[in-house]
Amino acid sequence: MTISMSSASLPVFRTMLENLSHILDKGAAHAEARKFDPAVLMQYRLSPDMLPFTKQIQIACDAAKFGAARIAGIEAPRYEDKEASFPELKARIQKTLDWLATVPADRIDGTEDKEITFPVGRESTRTMKAEAYLKHWVLPNLFFHVTTAYAILRHNGVELGNSDYLLGAKA
Amino acid sequence: MTISMSSASLPVFRTMLENLSHILDKGAAHAEARKFDPAVLMQYRLSPDMLPFTKQIQIACDAAKFGAARIAGIEAPRYEDKEASFPELKARIQKTLDWLATVPADRIDGTEDKEITFPVGRESTRTMKAEAYLKHWVLPNLFFHVTTAYAILRHNGVELGNSDYLLGAKA
Repeated sequence: MTISMSSASLPVFRTMLENLSHILDKGAAHAEARKFDPAVLMQYRLSPDMLPFTKQIQIACDAAKFGAARIAGIEAPRYEDKEASFPELKARIQKTLDWLATVPADRIDGTEDKEITFPVGRESTRTMKAEAYLKHWVLPNLFFHVTTAYAILRHNGVELGNSDYLLGAKA
Repeated sequence: MTISMSSASLPVFRTMLENLSHILDKGAAHAEARKFDPAVLMQYRLSPDMLPFTKQIQIACDAAKFGAARIAGIEAPRYEDKEASFPELKARIQKTLDWLATVPADRIDGTEDKEITFPVGRESTRTMKAEAYLKHWVLPNLFFHVTTAYAILRHNGVELGNSDYLLGAKA
């Protein structure tokens, strides 16, 4: 097989979101074992001006969802950011995965040079070709938010390691 | 242009290592402005059982270097892990970038189905096809260590934002 825009995007999005869901299980189990409210983890920030755990999960989902939608030129469903528990966060990931599974690979393939215009912050947009957008915007953002969620849990004593972050790495 | 194994790897490695170097500048400037020893940042860990900042930089460099070398089937230079200052860490990144610039793209292109065997931990190895190895091992590791280095600095008050992490995103 030859690498393609769809093979460079969809399986990576799926694997990282599945790993993120697995990491959430460990966070929830830790809170239960230590008998503290999981909301403490959900609101935790590594720095006062960084986003809390819940937001890291929501943005990781949206990075994959809007990335795929924009490259494929299809409409992505909008999800309200109102998750208030670990099960709800896991459901957010799952509905993102379910939607990603409906994106036709052939709408993503061959888009390398297609111009993608996307919002940056609240008031501006940026335009990149789809290949650059995937490699230098969508993937860095997705990995950033998954890693930061993982780091928040590690920082709070959740027993996680490399193999959790890389769980779904397939041969 | 069509996406290829080399275009999906080398420019991403380069951009993220360049961004990492830029992030280091901000960390060093912060230590200088606040008049504390930068070694404090270099030894900082987000959790007692996570690796310190210096190690995050070394591993980010090695993830890109060994990833490219294994896929291309060429020997990568070994760098001793002995950096003891921010300028030395920046030099480690720069020599990795310099070496990456010598890797011929045509040794990476067409390797999608080539089997890559690589060490996992100290005592075992794993084998993946090169496309999966790039997408599900090398890139997740590279982004993990760059993001964790960034998070360590943010956690310690360094003024960094999205635009620093994504600095080199090219159209």
